[in-house]
Amino acid sequence: MWLGQSTNLRYLSGVVEKPSERLFGAFIPAEGEPMMVVPRLYHDEMQELSAIGAVRSWTDEEGMASAVRRWFDLPPGSTVAVDPLLHAAFLFLFQEELPQVQFTSAGELLGQMRLYKDEYEKGCLRTAGKIADAVMAEITSRSPAGRTEREVAAEIERLFEEHGSEGVSFPPIASAGPNAAFPHHMPDGTVIQPGQCLVLDFGGVYQGYASDMTRTIFAGDPPAEMRRVYEVVQAAQQYAVEHLKPGMPAEAADALARQCIVDAGYGNAFIHRLGHGIGLDVHEAPYLVAGNPVELKPGVAFSVEPGVYVTGLGGVRIEDIVLMNEDGPERVNHVPRELLAL
Amino acid sequence: MWLGQSTNLRYLSGVVEKPSERLFGAFIPAEGEPMMVVPRLYHDEMQELSAIGAVRSWTDEEGMASAVRRWFDLPPGSTVAVDPLLHAAFLFLFQEELPQVQFTSAGELLGQMRLYKDEYEKGCLRTAGKIADAVMAEITSRSPAGRTEREVAAEIERLFEEHGSEGVSFPPIASAGPNAAFPHHMPDGTVIQPGQCLVLDFGGVYQGYASDMTRTIFAGDPPAEMRRVYEVVQAAQQYAVEHLKPGMPAEAADALARQCIVDAGYGNAFIHRLGHGIGLDVHEAPYLVAGNPVELKPGVAFSVEPGVYVTGLGGVRIEDIVLMNEDGPERVNHVPRELLAL
Repeated sequence: MWLGQSTNLRYLSGVVEKPSERLFGAFIPAEGEPMMVVPRLYHDEMQELSAIGAVRSWTDEEGMASAVRRWFDLPPGSTVAVDPLLHAAFLFLFQEELPQVQFTSAGELLGQMRLYKDEYEKGCLRTAGKIADAVMAEITSRSPAGRTEREVAAEIERLFEEHGSEGVSFPPIASAGPNAAFPHHMPDGTVIQPGQCLVLDFGGVYQGYASDMTRTIFAGDPPAEMRRVYEVVQAAQQYAVEHLKPGMPAEAADALARQCIVDAGYGNAFIHRLGHGIGLDVHEAPYLVAGNPVELKPGVAFSVEPGVYVTGLGGVRIEDIVLMNEDGPERVNHVPRELLAL
Repeated sequence: MWLGQSTNLRYLSGVVEKPSERLFGAFIPAEGEPMMVVPRLYHDEMQELSAIGAVRSWTDEEGMASAVRRWFDLPPGSTVAVDPLLHAAFLFLFQEELPQVQFTSAGELLGQMRLYKDEYEKGCLRTAGKIADAVMAEITSRSPAGRTEREVAAEIERLFEEHGSEGVSFPPIASAGPNAAFPHHMPDGTVIQPGQCLVLDFGGVYQGYASDMTRTIFAGDPPAEMRRVYEVVQAAQQYAVEHLKPGMPAEAADALARQCIVDAGYGNAFIHRLGHGIGLDVHEAPYLVAGNPVELKPGVAFSVEPGVYVTGLGGVRIEDIVLMNEDGPERVNHVPRELLAL
């Protein structure tokens, strides 16, 4: 297996590196010792930092093609499972330099390994959730009316820093009024108007583990339809979390919330899956989506985030991270989910 | 050609999106109209934002495999050039769902397209350089002695925000004393001691365009060997920039600085290439490295950053971004390069 500069490498070696254009990663043979292969300028530091003892390196002068031939001298018929987060450039390089080798995705294997969180990981997710809660409590402590989406998003980033986060796990979403009908609208100069909804979807990082939560608040009294939409989404989120059972198929969890929203007449407006796994990546297996039979066994961590989006008017999404324990689901986010009109 | 959530997509469509697990990008046929293929939840927003008019979408319920078969209904023998920054997971998906199609890297083609900066891009790189200069001037206005690397790095991030940057182009490097012998050491709790060197290597972002600069300062009077190393690196950087000529091969530029450092007896301690191109990515073509014959024609932008690293003692690196113009090189960074002992 070859792991690049990704959360998969971090998971298995402790090495934290951003993707770059230089070949950098770990080669893990089916038998024998794993080795790191890194650019020369990282060699000495990796020998200190990596849990993988054998560190090999290549120089800029030698180049990557030669390094690949030199370090991956594999017999014909070998198969290498490749980090799904690797940049395609490296996969093309491997395929060109090692024509005797088959390459396949390590996605399933790594997804399985990372699916079940141990006690340390659960602790990190709980702390990450607590930080996100604190940020949400603070950002919703006064009316957003008159501020721009971008100002609110910038304050969220500052608050995560103040509360001890290693940064945000993704650029914060703060979508007001009609913009909130786009689930992943990027914050812009839109001024939040009285009566408008504001979707706040954000997360931080603690010890590498992500948080991700969403609340939808209102700048003053919402119009009747948005109030109705809010009640539908809140009820669907509550119903889904209450009815999660250890071992339940991921698609069944999606169906719990979806049926509530369909029954309320908004089925066509819930235009995404119910949720996603979370850990070192803010989106990882398991995905709570129609057609996914993966069982939500104890140890799995995921988001529950139904949403309803009404073109021209706005949207409502409510999201918590849930740990599936032996005795049922545990939310890591506790900020109230009742309608908040500020 | 298929472009994913990358700077290549931004370059050709204006769409700015971080990589995710959902298929998202642009398909550009050799003939006919390009189209965006995006998850349903991005559909309406992309119709507003993308320079590519035709926006197609797939739902979480349908899934990506079906979407690939539906939207890439290509005849046998077709070849698709793939974004080198795409996650390998998508390339594996394409190869599995479209066995009649050949996939090849679009890296060369895109590198060529992005190699020559137009006046707008040059303006962005100059402004990005000016912001980095301002941050460097401020961070080197007082002695770093007694502070930790991590404190200095955090201040650099804050300064970029204050000076109007869209964020940092990579996590700032602030490496003190022996840590500076590792060219890409990550800032930690090391307290900067009197007499130690401090390598400051950082960049911001302006209109998507990166800056990247390095200065090495000293916390008080440096030891004699570090003073000597500093003089060697400063002279090599100055010599290389002065002798750059439009059309010069990239490897010849590398050799200019390398020869200075070899002549001074530190050849084995200059353990990386001289520089890299810069634009929407902080590292992009052309790479100034032995074996690369690419000509540095007018319009090309790149770093010139020789370094010498002495195990157990420290390191010195000095870096400016250079635009190659018709009449020769233009530095975009102007903070003094003389030895600064604070």
